[in-house]
Amino acid sequence: MGNGYSLGLDFGTASVRALLISLDSGAETATAVWNYQHGTDGVIGAADDPHLARQHPADYLDGSAAVLKEVLARAKAADPDFAPERVLGIGVDTTGSTPIPVDGAGRPLCFQDRFRDNPAALAWLWKDHTAVAEAEELTQLAGRLRPDYLRHCGGRYSSEWFWAKILRLARQDPEVYRAAAGFVELADFIPAQLCGAGAPGEIRRSACAAGHKALYSRKWGGLPDEEFLAGLDPRLAGLRARLYDRVFPAGASAGRLSPEWARRTGLPAGCPVSVGAFDAHLGAVGSGIRENGLVKVMGTSTCDLMVFPAAAEARLEAIEGMCGFAEDSIIPGLIGLEAGQSGVGDIFAWFAGHFLPAGYQREAAAAGRDGQQWLTEKAARLKPGSSGLLALDWNNGNRSILVDQWLTGLLVGQTLGTRPEEVYRSLVEATAFGARVIVDQIEAGGISIGAVIACGGISRKNPFLMQIYSNILERPIRVAGSEQTCALGAAIAGAVAAGAFKDIPAGQDRCCRFEAADYRPEPAAVPVYRELYRLYRQLHDGFGRPAGPLAGVMKDLLKLKRASNAS
Amino acid sequence: MGNGYSLGLDFGTASVRALLISLDSGAETATAVWNYQHGTDGVIGAADDPHLARQHPADYLDGSAAVLKEVLARAKAADPDFAPERVLGIGVDTTGSTPIPVDGAGRPLCFQDRFRDNPAALAWLWKDHTAVAEAEELTQLAGRLRPDYLRHCGGRYSSEWFWAKILRLARQDPEVYRAAAGFVELADFIPAQLCGAGAPGEIRRSACAAGHKALYSRKWGGLPDEEFLAGLDPRLAGLRARLYDRVFPAGASAGRLSPEWARRTGLPAGCPVSVGAFDAHLGAVGSGIRENGLVKVMGTSTCDLMVFPAAAEARLEAIEGMCGFAEDSIIPGLIGLEAGQSGVGDIFAWFAGHFLPAGYQREAAAAGRDGQQWLTEKAARLKPGSSGLLALDWNNGNRSILVDQWLTGLLVGQTLGTRPEEVYRSLVEATAFGARVIVDQIEAGGISIGAVIACGGISRKNPFLMQIYSNILERPIRVAGSEQTCALGAAIAGAVAAGAFKDIPAGQDRCCRFEAADYRPEPAAVPVYRELYRLYRQLHDGFGRPAGPLAGVMKDLLKLKRASNAS
Repeated sequence: MGNGYSLGLDFGTASVRALLISLDSGAETATAVWNYQHGTDGVIGAADDPHLARQHPADYLDGSAAVLKEVLARAKAADPDFAPERVLGIGVDTTGSTPIPVDGAGRPLCFQDRFRDNPAALAWLWKDHTAVAEAEELTQLAGRLRPDYLRHCGGRYSSEWFWAKILRLARQDPEVYRAAAGFVELADFIPAQLCGAGAPGEIRRSACAAGHKALYSRKWGGLPDEEFLAGLDPRLAGLRARLYDRVFPAGASAGRLSPEWARRTGLPAGCPVSVGAFDAHLGAVGSGIRENGLVKVMGTSTCDLMVFPAAAEARLEAIEGMCGFAEDSIIPGLIGLEAGQSGVGDIFAWFAGHFLPAGYQREAAAAGRDGQQWLTEKAARLKPGSSGLLALDWNNGNRSILVDQWLTGLLVGQTLGTRPEEVYRSLVEATAFGARVIVDQIEAGGISIGAVIACGGISRKNPFLMQIYSNILERPIRVAGSEQTCALGAAIAGAVAAGAFKDIPAGQDRCCRFEAADYRPEPAAVPVYRELYRLYRQLHDGFGRPAGPLAGVMKDLLKLKRASNAS
Repeated sequence: MGNGYSLGLDFGTASVRALLISLDSGAETATAVWNYQHGTDGVIGAADDPHLARQHPADYLDGSAAVLKEVLARAKAADPDFAPERVLGIGVDTTGSTPIPVDGAGRPLCFQDRFRDNPAALAWLWKDHTAVAEAEELTQLAGRLRPDYLRHCGGRYSSEWFWAKILRLARQDPEVYRAAAGFVELADFIPAQLCGAGAPGEIRRSACAAGHKALYSRKWGGLPDEEFLAGLDPRLAGLRARLYDRVFPAGASAGRLSPEWARRTGLPAGCPVSVGAFDAHLGAVGSGIRENGLVKVMGTSTCDLMVFPAAAEARLEAIEGMCGFAEDSIIPGLIGLEAGQSGVGDIFAWFAGHFLPAGYQREAAAAGRDGQQWLTEKAARLKPGSSGLLALDWNNGNRSILVDQWLTGLLVGQTLGTRPEEVYRSLVEATAFGARVIVDQIEAGGISIGAVIACGGISRKNPFLMQIYSNILERPIRVAGSEQTCALGAAIAGAVAAGAFKDIPAGQDRCCRFEAADYRPEPAAVPVYRELYRLYRQLHDGFGRPAGPLAGVMKDLLKLKRASNAS
């Protein structure tokens, strides 16, 4: 494949990025970013509903064209020998579940005049939480009729996922629902558009999106059966037949770049395009995930990913509180397992943003640091256990292993001597304890976890936090070498689709690097954190388990909060 | 008593105040304050022991002379007809337990050259916590041998109290201990000094100090018996006989002003001086305390005081978690009951002092407010229950009803939307819930609480907080009319000692006033707070009761903290 390149297109929550990699060296050659234009930072909300979060598909298309053109221009500027024809493949990763209602030609309904200002016709962004009731209904029904479904998704179906959103749409806006020929995940929409679109039934769907969000499994013959869906709501009767019955892993071909998109971007028409996948999953690919290895994608929240041979399925079914597992969702032929923490970086940002005293802000400014860096530096000088503080990291609910959005944060141990950097450190430690709970839960299921690899902004910018994670997880942690592991994973998938690599692992061998130094547990800190973790588990089970002695407190406080704010 | 006056001398932690009142009108005519000169804000600490807190008795004497002279000068300046001869009596209130080791003439040992720089020879300030182990030993021994003692002091003897401090002194500095002819509470020391001092055995001791801090009760014939004290430590053998076997209530005569003090101050020699009492107890007098009424002295911490007829003693013995009760300690002939909260105003000051964001500080400054006022104004605009937050007010431990210094603060309900004013409000509410626990505990003992009267800085400066207290206590709260209820109570006692009033209640009738408007529960808030209080009790019992499901968490965190900071 000498001198070839591949492109990764990475659709985040606020922007789209293109990353060009050299297939010879695996090096990242050029990148370009485009911020979405609609809404606030790309997210369209509703004044009367804080749970609503939509995006305009025009942003995805305009953004794709913009970053593809720009990344080619940058590559050319850096290397006059570069030519767009040397791009051999394109891969795509996106947020999800982010379903879009489309017409018979695969075009978003919001592109039609009659639905132009209708939020129901937009893309339902992953973090849209309007479908809480619908998710709960699905969970209840599956519990009665199809317990297997729940075993694949951690015991509870989420309001963030495909069916909950579709059902919500069907009930809330029947006109949009009836007008929809189908529903397409953003991860499927982009490759289809690049390849010239087509009817929803012709789009090659992502095994990752289908398996993790739409309850797709070979075990029960694809999507949930007609009886189940019609039982959930008669409005869903007949929908299954209009969706899909086959899925494909990233690296499989989604088609070839259409002449129109070649014209818009300067890329060669006919360039192979890979089937899409979710950002975290291709981020795990770009981080060098391997069997029994755990990749932690660390950002505002955290996603934990592992891959297993098919033989592990029975054991995975027995592990409660994961986000779920799905065939071929990360590396073809392997089961991808996903778990996650609802709040990590955003908890630190919340505290630094709202509780940073004026004196610290002045000191930080004088030292050329921002507030969070300053708190980090001060917190790094403290000894484990020295503050007497312990926190629960549930300010944004708990994804794994409790799968409960109706949990909240907690801090215990305050005295009149407690200082902000001590609170900050306890929040960092709390997220690490949360990470440890997930690791322990997986291992309690009979699965041993080998190497831990971290990627994402935090893993590269915050050695203080990474050292605490290593101390609390009691394992070495490797840090992925790329700052753009998601886009890198997408580019690897594009190259596989083009036949430039024989498979994903071969692409990883060529492209994935690690930072030189691992984080390793510090012997003096480990016993202190082991004792703190014992106490964390007491709080975790006491407040978070349904049978915990204080299980009602957080929920009752949230009820009071809702009632008060509604009055 | 036409045109007569009385003087109250009020010894706080950092300063001494004199207050002159007119016995005709009850009006407060003049006041003067003098800050102690030794140590930091009057408190002598130790670099190597954060629990040590001592004061230099010279401050008490120099300060007395200064404020007495100055208050007379101010009265004269305000009213040319005023003359010092019109001062008919002097009363004294002080902090406590603040025992001072003295020689055979009643002079503090630290006035001797050989003990000049020895902290053991100073006054052991009420908040000195060096005697934790000794207090625990006394509690253990009393539990085995003299359970009645514990029934009078809330079930646990405190490190802040008389015998714990004496025992600590005896062990830690035997030379000072052997040199001490006796030990005198500050409340007894001042009247004795004003009247020309005298041997420790001649000093007329305060029923308040003896009953609340030295386990003095008529029930067992005065101080703890010789067998018990010698059993506690042989060093204490024989001490009892060198102390006292009679006590006197405030309003009883301690003697008459000595010629020396008349010369130093300009007051008439022979002026009657009342037996002293503690500040909170005379503050309750100055607040107009009556049978079954509850006076809350609200400041950095809070003291709750009630008075009962002797017949209530058996019921009082059965109520756990009070600070204790004592005969004649507030109003002669009645039992005084004391309970308290370890942290109130100092918790608010801690939060505002260390977690006030720069933006709020700018806004506050622009509005001419300090940080705490600004947080209060913002918190006052929130609705009950609207934050979803709930706190435990144990940042400084819990005095009543758990009597446990090894408890810490807790905050639950944080989301990514939580703001500082919400936390601040939850801290205010937490202290009110703590107040409610005390009220409920007393009423559960079969005692009904009538009027609630608040005094102290918070009660007059913070209507936001007072309204929350009324809502949470579900009672009207009256606010004492005086800003100096302690000094006022002392002045009333001085007038009683002079015969100007027939007794304390007669003096209260003349001198005690209330703010015009009471705080009354707001019907809309009461049910919300009742529900929050139910949850507060769950946290309270879950973390604070020895058998609570999470009882170990705070203590284990404190153990880790101590171990970490010692390593």
